[in-house]
Amino acid sequence: MNPFTDHPDQSIAAWGESVLIEHIVQWMGDRVPPPPHGIGDDAAVLPPPPDGFQLVMTADALVWRSHFDASASPEQAGRKLANRNLSDLAAMGARPGFFILTLQLGKNVSKTWIQWFFHGFHEACQRHEVKLVGGDISSAPASTFSASVTAGGFAKHPMFRTGGQAGDSIWVTGSLGGSRQGKHLDFSPRVQEGLWLAERAAVHAMIDLTDGLAKDLPALVPNGLQAAVRPSAIPLSADALQTSPNEEAALHAALTEGEDFELLFCLSSAIPPAQFIEEWEAAQHTPITCIGMLIPANPQNAPPLWDSEKNQPLSDVHLEGYEHFRAN
Amino acid sequence: MNPFTDHPDQSIAAWGESVLIEHIVQWMGDRVPPPPHGIGDDAAVLPPPPDGFQLVMTADALVWRSHFDASASPEQAGRKLANRNLSDLAAMGARPGFFILTLQLGKNVSKTWIQWFFHGFHEACQRHEVKLVGGDISSAPASTFSASVTAGGFAKHPMFRTGGQAGDSIWVTGSLGGSRQGKHLDFSPRVQEGLWLAERAAVHAMIDLTDGLAKDLPALVPNGLQAAVRPSAIPLSADALQTSPNEEAALHAALTEGEDFELLFCLSSAIPPAQFIEEWEAAQHTPITCIGMLIPANPQNAPPLWDSEKNQPLSDVHLEGYEHFRAN
Repeated sequence: MNPFTDHPDQSIAAWGESVLIEHIVQWMGDRVPPPPHGIGDDAAVLPPPPDGFQLVMTADALVWRSHFDASASPEQAGRKLANRNLSDLAAMGARPGFFILTLQLGKNVSKTWIQWFFHGFHEACQRHEVKLVGGDISSAPASTFSASVTAGGFAKHPMFRTGGQAGDSIWVTGSLGGSRQGKHLDFSPRVQEGLWLAERAAVHAMIDLTDGLAKDLPALVPNGLQAAVRPSAIPLSADALQTSPNEEAALHAALTEGEDFELLFCLSSAIPPAQFIEEWEAAQHTPITCIGMLIPANPQNAPPLWDSEKNQPLSDVHLEGYEHFRAN
Repeated sequence: MNPFTDHPDQSIAAWGESVLIEHIVQWMGDRVPPPPHGIGDDAAVLPPPPDGFQLVMTADALVWRSHFDASASPEQAGRKLANRNLSDLAAMGARPGFFILTLQLGKNVSKTWIQWFFHGFHEACQRHEVKLVGGDISSAPASTFSASVTAGGFAKHPMFRTGGQAGDSIWVTGSLGGSRQGKHLDFSPRVQEGLWLAERAAVHAMIDLTDGLAKDLPALVPNGLQAAVRPSAIPLSADALQTSPNEEAALHAALTEGEDFELLFCLSSAIPPAQFIEEWEAAQHTPITCIGMLIPANPQNAPPLWDSEKNQPLSDVHLEGYEHFRAN
């Protein structure tokens, strides 16, 4: 569904900014805390993190034609904006706390469309107990819809991308590839999984997969190490398999397409994989797969990703992840 | 200067996202703290507020053609983005702390333009000791430039819009109107002034003037009160006077044009104005003016703003402030 309308009386311009903000506060219900902790002043005053927790913050945007198009319902778009940010908090092992929302809107944005957008946004906030504490609305050229969330969360043991060690096994939640078939709009951010993993000292490093395994995994590989990956172990999604002519193409999709929003992490070699899987399955329902391990880099100057089955750089499969400013 | 280029090799698309981020980190220098407190992970871990301080957060955007046009230099645009947010923190009486920046960029944004944009942004961050701790870059349709900052600050005694009492005098810093002549690009956010005012228990309520006195002052007027304003006391800027055919038109500009980025606040009647001015002038260089007072609303259902000289609603002068989604 297109966010815009040709009928001025059905557009947000007919409301004006103040009325639109009143509607948003109403649509968001008890997700908006009372002042001074919510909307209505020059800034929001935030409660301090719980004892022993640190504040972590991240930001992610949702832009018309970049992150969604008319094939998405407005509810899906609103959910995606929330869930993109929740996925980043999950990768830090942080409990979701609050959102600050900035909207840049053309005046032809439809009243109906934005109401349903907030329906989806509210649903994700409700599910993950996130408060909307503030934001900003700006006018923008006609047929613009651009929304950014800055998300705050609370982490007892923040998980970083750095920290992987030689011998660590590499794991991924869920399955990869084919996200464009629909998962990119309807995914579950791995919030509970991220919290569970961050509580384990054996988990050394974590990231969420947004630009594709091939582009995101190198961020977990410290200097001097390589990621030895078994391509045959990579969990291919049903969507990747169904839309690919063969398994090689499905693997390529899993490596490069992006927007998987799964967690990728390094686990200490001190934990036997079977024991880890048992503990995981006792606590979580999401599938989990070991896809490789961190090894000392060899030969010199080797690429960070190594196909441990063909014993050659994984880059032979062509490993460019999603690039935001592709020149062509 | 236009942010866009027709030459692909001079555009940010020629760099790609990763290289652009590397450049931004370099341009921002020591304003970017080392990980995990800065850029480079899924989220930034923030240091806790200093003892006795609360975290306050706000957000404001800068959109091409809405908040600046080709008459602005890229440095001015970058400074304006930072200073808009600093003005909101000032209105809370908060010490600036950190920024999170989200950019939505068409791939034809010029490398040179964005470098100078960050030159201005960095300058404002440096001056007010703000760190850039994270952000996000998204691709957007061609000829889009949209930037949002979420700003965090630390307040010992956060100042709210609510809190004004009958008998309070109403004060404004600096002078108003004519901002479009250039001040909207080159203003000083009243950070030190806001901190000084927030330390005084006699200051009951505060806001920064972004949409014009006529639209912003009612936010300081509690139910049951009116703001009795002496129009002749409103400090008119030289720009408003020079570009208006007469004083009435300059007053209209001061009331309605917006983007003054001055502080407006309510002061307890327990403090004699002369004493307050003396204390202010001993500490601050910015001019300050008393423009009216809060009085009990009379007659019933009177508008919030009252012309105390003509003894009629101030709305006769036409008091619509800047409206972000004007339908016409």
